[in-house]
Amino acid sequence: MSSTSTTTTSQEIPPSDSQTRVSKFMQQLQDDICQGLEKLDGKETFREDSWDRPEGGGGRSRVIREGGVFEQGGVNFSQVWGSQLPPSILKQRPEAAGHGFYATGTSMVLHPRNPYVPTVHLNYRYFEAGQVWWFGGGADLTPYYPFEEDAAHFHKTLKKACDEHHQDYYPVFKPWCDEYFYLKHRQEMRGVGGIFFDYQDGRGALYRGPNEKGPAAENSQKVGTLEPRTWEQLFSFIQACGNSFLDSYGKIVEDRWSKKYGDRERQFQLYRRGRYVEFNLVYDRGTIFGLQTNGRTESILMSLPPLVRWEYCYQPEANTPEAHLYERFLKPQDWASWSDA
Amino acid sequence: MSSTSTTTTSQEIPPSDSQTRVSKFMQQLQDDICQGLEKLDGKETFREDSWDRPEGGGGRSRVIREGGVFEQGGVNFSQVWGSQLPPSILKQRPEAAGHGFYATGTSMVLHPRNPYVPTVHLNYRYFEAGQVWWFGGGADLTPYYPFEEDAAHFHKTLKKACDEHHQDYYPVFKPWCDEYFYLKHRQEMRGVGGIFFDYQDGRGALYRGPNEKGPAAENSQKVGTLEPRTWEQLFSFIQACGNSFLDSYGKIVEDRWSKKYGDRERQFQLYRRGRYVEFNLVYDRGTIFGLQTNGRTESILMSLPPLVRWEYCYQPEANTPEAHLYERFLKPQDWASWSDA
Repeated sequence: MSSTSTTTTSQEIPPSDSQTRVSKFMQQLQDDICQGLEKLDGKETFREDSWDRPEGGGGRSRVIREGGVFEQGGVNFSQVWGSQLPPSILKQRPEAAGHGFYATGTSMVLHPRNPYVPTVHLNYRYFEAGQVWWFGGGADLTPYYPFEEDAAHFHKTLKKACDEHHQDYYPVFKPWCDEYFYLKHRQEMRGVGGIFFDYQDGRGALYRGPNEKGPAAENSQKVGTLEPRTWEQLFSFIQACGNSFLDSYGKIVEDRWSKKYGDRERQFQLYRRGRYVEFNLVYDRGTIFGLQTNGRTESILMSLPPLVRWEYCYQPEANTPEAHLYERFLKPQDWASWSDA
Repeated sequence: MSSTSTTTTSQEIPPSDSQTRVSKFMQQLQDDICQGLEKLDGKETFREDSWDRPEGGGGRSRVIREGGVFEQGGVNFSQVWGSQLPPSILKQRPEAAGHGFYATGTSMVLHPRNPYVPTVHLNYRYFEAGQVWWFGGGADLTPYYPFEEDAAHFHKTLKKACDEHHQDYYPVFKPWCDEYFYLKHRQEMRGVGGIFFDYQDGRGALYRGPNEKGPAAENSQKVGTLEPRTWEQLFSFIQACGNSFLDSYGKIVEDRWSKKYGDRERQFQLYRRGRYVEFNLVYDRGTIFGLQTNGRTESILMSLPPLVRWEYCYQPEANTPEAHLYERFLKPQDWASWSDA
């Protein structure tokens, strides 16, 4: 991989039915994920609200509450359009200024009740604006009382989906995730990561944005390029990522959901959920995009946990499971190479 | 009042001991408030942490937890300095660019346990940078199950402190508060307001910033001017505001702290605390300043409530006390003129 500028290359024109096809996939992904999660939960089902956005578009939000596994979970589909992208995106994609835009995507956050089951987030999205288009998204895992084999399983599943499309995807998108889901004011990762990417526009760049926040961000504006990819190749890749989710997370739920826990574990879970709130409200690009584009607030903030605790100056005691989370898991690790052998 | 530009007028040079005097007052204010709150609480006392800021300055943070009245409360004093103000402030004060800065202030947020006692916030602050200086701050009340007489008492006490210094202060700083403590994404005020002001630099302007968020914000960049005020006049005014706090809030605590409540009131209080988190992490200037200047995270986020709930699509039922909060109290009202006669 070599580091060359790619912003002057013109982009392939997407197929004429690009918006319909991506939007259809995003709805299918929402359906499949909700069906799989209901099966995992075993008790509750999703409630759906369809909504329109006055400025153009709409979506359907699905929420599960007080389930057998999920204290709260939300899976959103949306497609929105308008006359101008919001400033947070135009800053990074100046060539999209002055054009109408179209955006569609599926996003999900699950807050399980059992502290041994990790919180998980997924989001895949597609944008068109004037002559430019791009895909973005990813999935990441946020455990409270983690197991190495769970982190490894989650990463290995994502790596497999990536590798089938390009050998460079996982090696770039995994550290990008570590950087993106980083709480700078805490100097902490949000969890054990996964994959994250943005602005995948086929023009030969595996671009890592200049304003990511993590420890390696300063020298990572471009991490390399690979041959231009077609719109079809990127769309296939997005589908593979989305469709790998239930494999990556389902096994973890099945292994952990019935593990006994007490008030200590619950209190620590509530405390750590505070970090999720801090990340989503202070840093998250999707949340800021939603609030800036006059999105449906209840759907955007569905990612916030149902119950959260803050505690001034909390520090885990040495040699406890809580300290182990910070020391072993909230630092970038090569989970895809992990082996219990 | 007429609307004229004031940015070209040069400022009075502050007294040579300005920093020492303001910082001494801010510490005294912290001492007085903490002493008064301990008396109100009747059970717990404040724990103090002193801290240094590597880039210059430091502070002392005081927290009370699990008290008789206060589930959590934090009162911070800080004075910090450095080579350059952060971007969030330079955008509004471009003439401060390229200069070292000095900032000192006291801030406070109290989260009472009883849902009939409102949450309250106070912050007074002073900045110097190159040839410019200014005072800012205010105090505002966020009730859960409100009483009209409490909102009126809070406002009347603040109005009295304002009126003794200038008849135009309260009429400008009261609506400024309504605009500032506004959650645009909810189209909701944070509470019943109080007073808020920023950039009071003596140059004849009662300036209301261009990026406030409330309903009247668009045409409120300047609301008027009054004769230039001296540094001494503004410093006296700030002291009067700060010193009025215990009067404004103490009576409310005394009247409400022992009122019986049940799980319904507690659950609604936890839910409404979510708005406090949303405001502080998404909009609050002091929080953003702190995080951008590498402040002490635990002191900055001490304002977040100890326990918080989010609930998807919650709406209060018609003709309930919860609906009454939204309909009567979360809209700008002329509380200072309220009378039970």
